[in-house]
Amino acid sequence: MLAKIKKALTIKNRTVREGLAEALGTFLLMFFGIGGVAQVILGKGEYGMYLSINLAFGIGVTMGIHAAGGISGAHMNASITFTHCVLGRLPWRKLPVYIIGQFLGSFVAAALMFCMYYDALCEYSGGKFIVTGPNGTAGIFATYPAPYMTLLGGFLDEFFATAVLMLCVLAIYDKKNNGALQGTEAVVTGLLVLAIGMSMGANTGYAINPSRDLPPRIFTAIAGWGIEVFRAGDHWWWVPIVAPTLGSLLGALGYKLLIDFHNQTVLEGREEKGKGDLQTDPV
Amino acid sequence: MLAKIKKALTIKNRTVREGLAEALGTFLLMFFGIGGVAQVILGKGEYGMYLSINLAFGIGVTMGIHAAGGISGAHMNASITFTHCVLGRLPWRKLPVYIIGQFLGSFVAAALMFCMYYDALCEYSGGKFIVTGPNGTAGIFATYPAPYMTLLGGFLDEFFATAVLMLCVLAIYDKKNNGALQGTEAVVTGLLVLAIGMSMGANTGYAINPSRDLPPRIFTAIAGWGIEVFRAGDHWWWVPIVAPTLGSLLGALGYKLLIDFHNQTVLEGREEKGKGDLQTDPV
Amino acid sequence: MLAKIKKALTIKNRTVREGLAEALGTFLLMFFGIGGVAQVILGKGEYGMYLSINLAFGIGVTMGIHAAGGISGAHMNASITFTHCVLGRLPWRKLPVYIIGQFLGSFVAAALMFCMYYDALCEYSGGKFIVTGPNGTAGIFATYPAPYMTLLGGFLDEFFATAVLMLCVLAIYDKKNNGALQGTEAVVTGLLVLAIGMSMGANTGYAINPSRDLPPRIFTAIAGWGIEVFRAGDHWWWVPIVAPTLGSLLGALGYKLLIDFHNQTVLEGREEKGKGDLQTDPV
Amino acid sequence: MLAKIKKALTIKNRTVREGLAEALGTFLLMFFGIGGVAQVILGKGEYGMYLSINLAFGIGVTMGIHAAGGISGAHMNASITFTHCVLGRLPWRKLPVYIIGQFLGSFVAAALMFCMYYDALCEYSGGKFIVTGPNGTAGIFATYPAPYMTLLGGFLDEFFATAVLMLCVLAIYDKKNNGALQGTEAVVTGLLVLAIGMSMGANTGYAINPSRDLPPRIFTAIAGWGIEVFRAGDHWWWVPIVAPTLGSLLGALGYKLLIDFHNQTVLEGREEKGKGDLQTDPV
Repeated sequence: MLAKIKKALTIKNRTVREGLAEALGTFLLMFFGIGGVAQVILGKGEYGMYLSINLAFGIGVTMGIHAAGGISGAHMNASITFTHCVLGRLPWRKLPVYIIGQFLGSFVAAALMFCMYYDALCEYSGGKFIVTGPNGTAGIFATYPAPYMTLLGGFLDEFFATAVLMLCVLAIYDKKNNGALQGTEAVVTGLLVLAIGMSMGANTGYAINPSRDLPPRIFTAIAGWGIEVFRAGDHWWWVPIVAPTLGSLLGALGYKLLIDFHNQTVLEGREEKGKGDLQTDPV
Repeated sequence: MLAKIKKALTIKNRTVREGLAEALGTFLLMFFGIGGVAQVILGKGEYGMYLSINLAFGIGVTMGIHAAGGISGAHMNASITFTHCVLGRLPWRKLPVYIIGQFLGSFVAAALMFCMYYDALCEYSGGKFIVTGPNGTAGIFATYPAPYMTLLGGFLDEFFATAVLMLCVLAIYDKKNNGALQGTEAVVTGLLVLAIGMSMGANTGYAINPSRDLPPRIFTAIAGWGIEVFRAGDHWWWVPIVAPTLGSLLGALGYKLLIDFHNQTVLEGREEKGKGDLQTDPV
Repeated sequence: MLAKIKKALTIKNRTVREGLAEALGTFLLMFFGIGGVAQVILGKGEYGMYLSINLAFGIGVTMGIHAAGGISGAHMNASITFTHCVLGRLPWRKLPVYIIGQFLGSFVAAALMFCMYYDALCEYSGGKFIVTGPNGTAGIFATYPAPYMTLLGGFLDEFFATAVLMLCVLAIYDKKNNGALQGTEAVVTGLLVLAIGMSMGANTGYAINPSRDLPPRIFTAIAGWGIEVFRAGDHWWWVPIVAPTLGSLLGALGYKLLIDFHNQTVLEGREEKGKGDLQTDPV
Repeated sequence: MLAKIKKALTIKNRTVREGLAEALGTFLLMFFGIGGVAQVILGKGEYGMYLSINLAFGIGVTMGIHAAGGISGAHMNASITFTHCVLGRLPWRKLPVYIIGQFLGSFVAAALMFCMYYDALCEYSGGKFIVTGPNGTAGIFATYPAPYMTLLGGFLDEFFATAVLMLCVLAIYDKKNNGALQGTEAVVTGLLVLAIGMSMGANTGYAINPSRDLPPRIFTAIAGWGIEVFRAGDHWWWVPIVAPTLGSLLGALGYKLLIDFHNQTVLEGREEKGKGDLQTDPV
């Protein structure tokens, strides 16, 4: 009977499975990440510091890649998915499934973390959920720019940070260059996200990912912070969607122009002439 | 003669050896972990901070896995052992041996650490062992919920944190998906526990493991803190036993439903048809 | 048509490609590193601490090695490039291309980070860019010695720190000794730079690399800090160029004299006699 | 001519080479470690914290293992060398060479770090080198117990901490059990030392190694701190020699009794009967 239940629950459709994997991967990334921010803010520094947040998001990425990598590639980021489509590595028809999966996982993570830290949130805020400022708590879930940031400055910040993210992801997985050892890419990508948080996190909270930012923002709008989450920071909400998407393309272009185009040609030439033993990398 | 002594000391019974391995692994996990908490609390922040505690538990897990992994699988957690029995990966008759081993290792670690920090403990507490509050020291050994936590909130916290633990452990060791490189799982599992501590540690101290919590609690009851260790936090002591056990099951179910069932079927189908070169993973 | 554009953009000249790779690698190292310093200084400790800076430079090195390692060897450091030329591992004619690439990458990283943190820089400094002292901000980009340092002390500091850097790099990549696992050298080299920052960073800011120090210094001279960046610290600017270059040679010599010479001879002898299965390492 | 110089400098005697490797490895361990302590103490917390010291010693161990591991096994610790002799893994006649090498490396590291931090040391201490107390600086080089420690408590602390060190080292390198992936042992051993520092460092400064403690102590006696370095802490100096040596033996015994004896027998039995494919591990 167990075998029957198992069979009934089994999904064979590849695209649905990829959507589920993206949902789980993004859920893990966000569950660890949001938890890290909540613990630092609501604990008033007693249970961690800014570095803990960076580490939590970094290891969250590592765990998400382990959980989803074999099924969907573990993008966990709508901008990266979009770039993979542009690069021809993912068919466009899969784009919505990936993004729906990511958004779902991100939203559920925000909701569950809200439950887990509900007692602490009430204790901290006196039950009044304020978006920004010294007692603001919406920043636990979505990103808001620092008060001194201009909109242009914030846009450029997210744009360049995501460019570096995408460029390094391509380098880490590039078997033709000097990528990370097979099976350790998840940890190295976690280190990458840790470093971005430590060097590009202060201005805008390093969203670098629409799937990380928009669903938790929608959740906070519903859960009691209200429509102000979309108004704060000079209507900041659209920046973590548009800037990372453009930045991701720049990062991919940069890696292609500076390293990969020339590398591919050289390797292809080698193979044509000498039937080189180096494999071309389909990913 | 040395060979004779060695022979006399050698145990061939597999189950006893597994119990010893669980005892050693759990001892290491707890020795590093409790030491980390003691150093931070008794040193009043001069010898570390909350992040050190998270790191100590994380690396403790890594060391425990290296020491016990080849013999018993290094569960070091009664909830994980229970889940493995439910999943059919471990015969039920081994469950008590595993748990006895874990509890023994955990209890001895608490007792030894008590000796190691006895001078510091007396200096800090003036010789008076108080359970909770600003001068409380029982929290060095077992976990207690934050004062603002409701029992339901604390239960859910431990429940979901353990679910994430189990889910990620399955992902890290899953050879059919995108697990960690063989031989590096111990480090990656350490990172996982580090991240849980940084993102889900503030509310309840992330027991996520009956073998981590109950034996040191019993030790403190004997060693001078008294029966109050079972009364504190609204009789909190049973939550780190029940909630992780249920949470661990949820985590396993979640990984099965979202990733593994579909993956197994697809792989099996592939093998039937094309005699695929991918091995099924017996672990 | 895309194929045509791709072909037009492809560079086949190996030396030019190496220069581009050095530029990209050094850019990443400096982008993460400078960002880390900016975040800590301009955030007044709210977004990180000294350890974050060490981590940012360390992971920056890791990422630079992944991005450039397969093309140019990812020196990202003029002193290391110079040492490789002296050791006969790199033809002298490539030296200028490597250094130009490194300097370019470093300069661009400083300029881009200046843009990314421009709003924060104005907020922090009130628009007045001061080189050193409590409100100094030039230290975000280039290194300056601590006020108590003598020039000789600072020189020795940079000299020995770079010697240790070069010695350990040779050890990490030494396949005849006990180097890091193939594919993990980037992470281990990042750990090395992290450790140098934590143990040899306080006195002079651990430049240990002309390509890390001079180009950002030139950038700050242009961007508003003025010629004072070359006068500060008793005309400190030349030390991070000369001391690391000499120190790097000492480190290579030290590794050769203490380990490698004897090791090579032994291995060669073994091969002559028994045709050993150990490969000589051409790198 | 260069070939001739190289030949003249080449040492073929294996034991001398092992002594040199131990010297280099221990030098690196101590150079990073002492530097880390100096930076934190002399920088008054501005350039790191207790965790940085733990990390510096941990990565120092990693680098020492990479530099010496292929030649001498990279003990870098007289207690571990002694234990290897007792276990029959190292001939007794090599013991003095190993220890001389380790002591030399450790002494030179202390002397060089004294030079590197001489300016900072004078600034901090006003030129007066005091052993212990709030302005004490001898603790940068050797270990001293916390004021509240009894001699017995300190002895037990060093004894158990070294037992755990040795036990985990055996587990990390045990190919028959669940050791670290070949080529990553250096990093995992670094994590082990990091964890010991975070959980067993507060009471006595975790010497856990005569080669780490005695040579720098002798250096400080010569360099201006005087004979007080041997009197302080109730003549503490002999404890980091005797306690780790006994503790290391306990750790080896513990691993043998709990894991290895039974494991060896089982594997040998398997080979006798079925010619198992598992190799016995000669290390």
